[in-house]
Amino acid sequence: MTAATSTQIHLARRPDGWPTHDDFATVSVELGDFAPGEVRVANEFVSVDPYMRGRMNDARSYVAPYAIGETIAGGAIGRVVASTVDALPVGTVVLHQHGWSDVVQADAATFRAVPEAPGVPLSLRLHILGMTGLTAYVGLTAVARIQPGDTVFVSGAAGAVGTAVGQIAKLLGAGRVIGSAGSAEKVALLTEKYGYDAALNYKDGPVREHLAELVPDGVDVFFDNVGGDHLEAALDVMNDGGRLALCGAIAGYNTTEKAPGPDNLANMITRGLTATGFTLSAYLHLSPEFGEKMTAWFAEGRIAYDETIVDGIENTVDAFLGMMRGANTGKMLVRIGAAGS
Amino acid sequence: MTAATSTQIHLARRPDGWPTHDDFATVSVELGDFAPGEVRVANEFVSVDPYMRGRMNDARSYVAPYAIGETIAGGAIGRVVASTVDALPVGTVVLHQHGWSDVVQADAATFRAVPEAPGVPLSLRLHILGMTGLTAYVGLTAVARIQPGDTVFVSGAAGAVGTAVGQIAKLLGAGRVIGSAGSAEKVALLTEKYGYDAALNYKDGPVREHLAELVPDGVDVFFDNVGGDHLEAALDVMNDGGRLALCGAIAGYNTTEKAPGPDNLANMITRGLTATGFTLSAYLHLSPEFGEKMTAWFAEGRIAYDETIVDGIENTVDAFLGMMRGANTGKMLVRIGAAGS
Repeated sequence: MTAATSTQIHLARRPDGWPTHDDFATVSVELGDFAPGEVRVANEFVSVDPYMRGRMNDARSYVAPYAIGETIAGGAIGRVVASTVDALPVGTVVLHQHGWSDVVQADAATFRAVPEAPGVPLSLRLHILGMTGLTAYVGLTAVARIQPGDTVFVSGAAGAVGTAVGQIAKLLGAGRVIGSAGSAEKVALLTEKYGYDAALNYKDGPVREHLAELVPDGVDVFFDNVGGDHLEAALDVMNDGGRLALCGAIAGYNTTEKAPGPDNLANMITRGLTATGFTLSAYLHLSPEFGEKMTAWFAEGRIAYDETIVDGIENTVDAFLGMMRGANTGKMLVRIGAAGS
Repeated sequence: MTAATSTQIHLARRPDGWPTHDDFATVSVELGDFAPGEVRVANEFVSVDPYMRGRMNDARSYVAPYAIGETIAGGAIGRVVASTVDALPVGTVVLHQHGWSDVVQADAATFRAVPEAPGVPLSLRLHILGMTGLTAYVGLTAVARIQPGDTVFVSGAAGAVGTAVGQIAKLLGAGRVIGSAGSAEKVALLTEKYGYDAALNYKDGPVREHLAELVPDGVDVFFDNVGGDHLEAALDVMNDGGRLALCGAIAGYNTTEKAPGPDNLANMITRGLTATGFTLSAYLHLSPEFGEKMTAWFAEGRIAYDETIVDGIENTVDAFLGMMRGANTGKMLVRIGAAGS
């Protein structure tokens, strides 16, 4: 077995507010001899996602906090470069949750082989064909119970989840789909590429005022990735019986002081609204259903996507921070070069 | 047909913040000749309810605002004193929504005959055996999907709805039931009479701190009549997959400035919570189911209740204002004396 060095990004300390480089450490680890059942994988893409910010805190949540001094866990896709296991021979493409490193060596059971298909870039398994797409699908179907003709509003619509939500909503029969994003370029992309009927730039002025102009007939489904002013604006315009799928609240992820919630929650009562917070863990049983539909949509050329690529494991923290500040369009990914083998 | 005078409470102008007597007018109206199909009813009890405050505003809501210069509509129960309709002969007890007056004359179709039963005071049709009880039942079942063993927290637990919620929750198999109320006497009543396992006095200190001490194992169902600090406190302690039935938000009904919402809405996402606002209009189909169960429970002596009675139609505004400030235990009602006939 060839020796190899793994470059890993560890959590050095818990961030206070916005993370900085000092909160992370880049560590080189010599990978040792294989334990029985282990494989070694050279990553090709590593994912940086908003939810990771929450795991950097020492707070009760649906997953345990990241431990100090350990690699930041998360989605990644790579190729087996050494193996002790027949089921995962060298060359197999695998998805895993070992996170921010260029090379990872671990028990074969922690990797899942995925088929390589012509015309399907591997990176897509980390977003539109993977958890990101599933998040959009689950939020619209099981959580928000989307109905044909519904008007749908999506906050953070130019992000990885948001670009998927708009398209899937349309494919599921939504009427108007409206999105918010943080630049004129992103707003244009939403309407020109992602099937949004209208979009607003939340940096142009109060979302509350801008949104109301775009949805004269109100909103039936709100898919929230942002929280804060977006949630408040949506509550203003929800139709009776409307449903809110609360997926993310990136507006508050890096604040040190707790921000107050919307001033119009009473609309929940008078309009009979249902708001459901969700994370994928409770909905993984919908993965096969999603896989079937998304595979078909993708094959028919009905799914667009964008990736914002940062090269090199050593730039992972920059990718993560950029994503938190909205530097990405579509999915933010770290591409790993010719890694150790 | 005997002539009669109806004393009615009209909305004189829309209240700004806390209502005052100047927002209402007491008006004497001579009831004229009968139109075909009309009956005249002498009310015995008139209801004052929190939701009425919302209808005094000129705001979009699930029911139209009260019109200036018209009688405040709402639940009442009385007896037919003159009739042109065979189906509603003199002496029939009827429920109706004509609201704040001592005598009302209107089309027979706007009244619903209710049976008189020994041991069932008429006033109960305006609360525990009526809309109030149905509100509690619907909120726990259809809205919050209560499960046996659930820990339930009820805000404003000593009010008309709250006293019903605690008992119905227990009858439906809840585990611990915890309530909040605004005085030591009410807190004692909750645990001694209404089956609450524990209760807190929200005037003793921050609900947030007090509640957490009472629910070491968290809360599965929150039935909210108050909003504000109670909603925030509940969000702190909700268990994963918890459900919030948002029934009322009396904390904010008389504020002129919009109050910010809870600072911990992110818990909705990380804990997979569902919050559903509701008003009865969407759940009236459950009325027969509720009627059957509640009639049986009541006959078995398993339902306690309190009434806070104010005498005289001319004191209706005082009753309403008192109820808004928590002067009531259980249901606040106006009892009408020997009315015109």
